[in-house]
Amino acid sequence: MPRYALKIEYDGAPFAGWQRQADLPSVQGAIEAALARLEPGPHTIAAAGRTDTGVHATGQVAHCDLARDWDPFRLAGALNAHLRPHPVAVVAVARVAGDFHARFSAIERRYLFRLLSRRAPEVHDRGRVWRVPHPLDATAMRQGAAHLVGLHDFTTFRAAGCQAASPVKTLDEVRLELAEGLNGTEYRFHLRARSFLHNQVRSIVGTLERVGAGAWAPEDVKRALEARDRAACGPVCPPQGLYLTGVGYGADPFAP
Amino acid sequence: MPRYALKIEYDGAPFAGWQRQADLPSVQGAIEAALARLEPGPHTIAAAGRTDTGVHATGQVAHCDLARDWDPFRLAGALNAHLRPHPVAVVAVARVAGDFHARFSAIERRYLFRLLSRRAPEVHDRGRVWRVPHPLDATAMRQGAAHLVGLHDFTTFRAAGCQAASPVKTLDEVRLELAEGLNGTEYRFHLRARSFLHNQVRSIVGTLERVGAGAWAPEDVKRALEARDRAACGPVCPPQGLYLTGVGYGADPFAP
Repeated sequence: MPRYALKIEYDGAPFAGWQRQADLPSVQGAIEAALARLEPGPHTIAAAGRTDTGVHATGQVAHCDLARDWDPFRLAGALNAHLRPHPVAVVAVARVAGDFHARFSAIERRYLFRLLSRRAPEVHDRGRVWRVPHPLDATAMRQGAAHLVGLHDFTTFRAAGCQAASPVKTLDEVRLELAEGLNGTEYRFHLRARSFLHNQVRSIVGTLERVGAGAWAPEDVKRALEARDRAACGPVCPPQGLYLTGVGYGADPFAP
Repeated sequence: MPRYALKIEYDGAPFAGWQRQADLPSVQGAIEAALARLEPGPHTIAAAGRTDTGVHATGQVAHCDLARDWDPFRLAGALNAHLRPHPVAVVAVARVAGDFHARFSAIERRYLFRLLSRRAPEVHDRGRVWRVPHPLDATAMRQGAAHLVGLHDFTTFRAAGCQAASPVKTLDEVRLELAEGLNGTEYRFHLRARSFLHNQVRSIVGTLERVGAGAWAPEDVKRALEARDRAACGPVCPPQGLYLTGVGYGADPFAP
């Protein structure tokens, strides 16, 4: 059966995460249902990142096997037609080799976390950013973040239930971009690694926010990391600011 | 009574426009109801731009008179508390002179129209952009727009029911900014004038979209303008891409 890679965008708000569950709406379930409208199922698709409840994506990648030889452009259109009215869109489709696996072939994941600092409630980005009412110190947050880049034991920054075999990971980048939004300053954290531990991004950003607020010193991040103790982590920040923005492969399956 | 200027942000989707109506939700009605929670009403507030159903704002300005001498910072917080859960936020408050009038003192209005070109349905900006599935030619749209800048009779570009005394207006700027969005190119039209006719921005952008799509030549915009005939206008584009972003006064009431 021909295999296809799908690049997927979604608003995580109405979903109990990526992964299919018996009685809860999931992104995987919505896409598998759309596939079943095209070809009889059941379909089981695999994704590069199994995002949590409420987490968004602009560049999730999954793969599926179909009986027919679909034109990628038409497959995207047909899936989008059947995905309505879910806030899920297939933004690209590519025919890939039979040994391509969206999760196991991935060599890089990229996440964005949007943190908005302003007193007034968010309006246009409600459900799409984490807002804090106090000012944030970008320099301090950058200093704190620098302690996390590289190969480390990230025990402090992973969920208690994380199932990864090892807490040792290489964090390739934590870059803080300042964006002047419509009414307030947005702090955009860009994180990049081969793979992430469960809740790692939200644990890191939640901790860096404490640094930005002045409650923690930048060096406290180093101490928390070196403690290798979940209790040393700052508060895990909420999911609605988090986006899976891209997945890297040895060769980009969506390259023109 | 002390007078206050309010800078207001709102998502237009749930409202039948700015203006209070008997049986329909309006932004004006929501704010007046919040004011009545602070001081017994009735309150009647005036705004710089009476936006239509579904049109958003990031920088609407209104004024109100209150009995008490409010600290502007606390007034904003109190109003926002009472505005929940409406997607309306007061982002700034200033005490102003008794002869300040949000509408009649205004010397400039600024609008943004967000037009997204991509095949896949919009996800994160659903209800906040106008999406077209075809590519657009920015150069052609800029050439078309150039014909509209300056002092003209805008009869072609105003709604049949427009109540302005004269169709002759000076359009100070139509600037097209290209923004690479998360998955697609966004065409942002920035328009600036002392005042606008009813539906003028949506009539202009709807016409320029036809130019971008190649259905109209840039010079056709000039011919449409010179026709001074509503029938010569392109299709009026939908409201969800339109934002009132700012209002100018002789002196900025919100200047620190």
